[in-house]
Amino acid sequence: MKEYRVAIVGMGAVGREMVKILEKSAVPVSDLKLLVRRNDGDTISFRGKDYVVKRVTPGCFKDLDLVLMAAGGDAATELAPIAQKEGAVVIDNSSAFRMEPNVPLVIPEVNPEAAGEHKGLIANPNCSTTQMLVPLKPLHDLFKIKRIVVSTYQAVSGTGKKALDELKKQAEDYLASKVVEPQIYPHQIAFNILPHIDSFLENGYTKEEMKMVNETQKIFGDEDIQVSPTAARVPVFNCHSESINIETEKPLPEVAEIKKILAQAPGIVVVDDVQNNEYPLALNCTGTDKVYVGRIRKDFTVTNGLNFWVVADNLRKGAALNAVQIAELLVAKNWL
Amino acid sequence: MKEYRVAIVGMGAVGREMVKILEKSAVPVSDLKLLVRRNDGDTISFRGKDYVVKRVTPGCFKDLDLVLMAAGGDAATELAPIAQKEGAVVIDNSSAFRMEPNVPLVIPEVNPEAAGEHKGLIANPNCSTTQMLVPLKPLHDLFKIKRIVVSTYQAVSGTGKKALDELKKQAEDYLASKVVEPQIYPHQIAFNILPHIDSFLENGYTKEEMKMVNETQKIFGDEDIQVSPTAARVPVFNCHSESINIETEKPLPEVAEIKKILAQAPGIVVVDDVQNNEYPLALNCTGTDKVYVGRIRKDFTVTNGLNFWVVADNLRKGAALNAVQIAELLVAKNWL
Repeated sequence: MKEYRVAIVGMGAVGREMVKILEKSAVPVSDLKLLVRRNDGDTISFRGKDYVVKRVTPGCFKDLDLVLMAAGGDAATELAPIAQKEGAVVIDNSSAFRMEPNVPLVIPEVNPEAAGEHKGLIANPNCSTTQMLVPLKPLHDLFKIKRIVVSTYQAVSGTGKKALDELKKQAEDYLASKVVEPQIYPHQIAFNILPHIDSFLENGYTKEEMKMVNETQKIFGDEDIQVSPTAARVPVFNCHSESINIETEKPLPEVAEIKKILAQAPGIVVVDDVQNNEYPLALNCTGTDKVYVGRIRKDFTVTNGLNFWVVADNLRKGAALNAVQIAELLVAKNWL
Repeated sequence: MKEYRVAIVGMGAVGREMVKILEKSAVPVSDLKLLVRRNDGDTISFRGKDYVVKRVTPGCFKDLDLVLMAAGGDAATELAPIAQKEGAVVIDNSSAFRMEPNVPLVIPEVNPEAAGEHKGLIANPNCSTTQMLVPLKPLHDLFKIKRIVVSTYQAVSGTGKKALDELKKQAEDYLASKVVEPQIYPHQIAFNILPHIDSFLENGYTKEEMKMVNETQKIFGDEDIQVSPTAARVPVFNCHSESINIETEKPLPEVAEIKKILAQAPGIVVVDDVQNNEYPLALNCTGTDKVYVGRIRKDFTVTNGLNFWVVADNLRKGAALNAVQIAELLVAKNWL
């Protein structure tokens, strides 16, 4: 069996999750490098061996087959072209290259074929886009989605470890009637809802919201599909929830049939037994690999409409897991 | 000046809020009764005088002009007809009578004229409907709304005082790594999102969601207006947030003009300066009387679409305040 020399760049929340997920993946790894731009020296175990986290240095990507990047947009912009030039295929988790025409933007359950077209660089989509498109894919294939109205309930883990600490600290302080000092977010996130993720653009939408518009069109290869998004941050540690409304071109079958279609599609678990209070919950999804779908019901206000609720682990399916799944796809198809 | 003999029935979170709001209202009160079905004996101050909370007894509504009810649907079903028969006009906060054809369902900023048609009983709308319709009213009048897609982020105070205690206790326990025991809600609400408010109906929607559909059509007197709702409970103590998407029949003006229209309409405060991180926040709205609107932006996916974010104090504008405002309207118009 062919083995691959792999590097992971960035040892934040997503990078560390990548190490854990790669460890259990189907990717045969002959050599692993864990790289950072600062704060080297940590030791991280992988498949029974300890690896010291080292700094990115000139030539560090030579002799590598695959580089998984979870180091943010600036680092990716600088390092991805170098890694490519030094001969590695890069899977980048940042938004830096997602909308570049020559860079495939891939969710393995949705558009695996796009990965085969790579020119040395593949982008991992935004977390809120990924968990939305996994369940929309089988519905789009069968019924052609015209329009999506989505409101998100996004966990703080998407912002990084400091945001997890901030939610914890603020909640403790607030419960103890102490003054709460926002640092990571512009306002208190504990016991509050912020209709604000990433920076605001001229058109009144946030970057996060426009990612859901643009990435959906690119991944589905369908510029006609319309997305009207509202992204909100909620006081949840991990796992994003989404309230999704769609309108399709073709008539939708009964809800029971839609549940079957979703349950049979890859990467989806249907959790939808409302009479027994069963629906997807953010609190139950940490550490899981699937996209959980529930509250599936017809939208009676349009001819072919559907409402549903989607939850996934944004650090895993929304980031680290999807990147490793792309790597597994490249290995399985011999596209590395 | 004519003075009125008033009773408030129910001394839970909403009933107590009614006492406070009535105290500062324009309603001249010559006599006040504070009534409950159980747990009498408390003393509550009103306009400089102490009132002992007493039990509902036969004949207790005689000689009253106005009864504000915040005692739940079962109590209202039993007591409202008695109070009416004994000569009082009833304003009921429960859902028991809202959809009765002879009972006006009133938001003073939206359909004050309906209150004039009362036959001794006026219903106060559901909290999530009220804060949605206050800003939709001026837009519906000018541009005729065809369809609303709304996702709510509802605070626990709507469930009552026990839910406030439960969120606090669960958050403390969770932060201390103790076992969390859900009691009021079917699942942990602290650091979680529940896509579930009130019980589920045959069509897959919750009662809360269908209230937003039916009450909107009744209050606007427009059976054609379509509402596609998703109601979710969030770990916030007080004040509901809503992500609202509308499509109108007539062309919408520029966002700056829409902001003006909203700011000039009654009961609305526009908080919308995203470049300075200003938008409505649940945490800032407790104790306020207005409906706060922000994140106003065109929805580019339909010809005449708009997205915005709405926050209000669900115990006040969503319940107690709206009821007292109906009382003020009845007094001002001499409709008592």
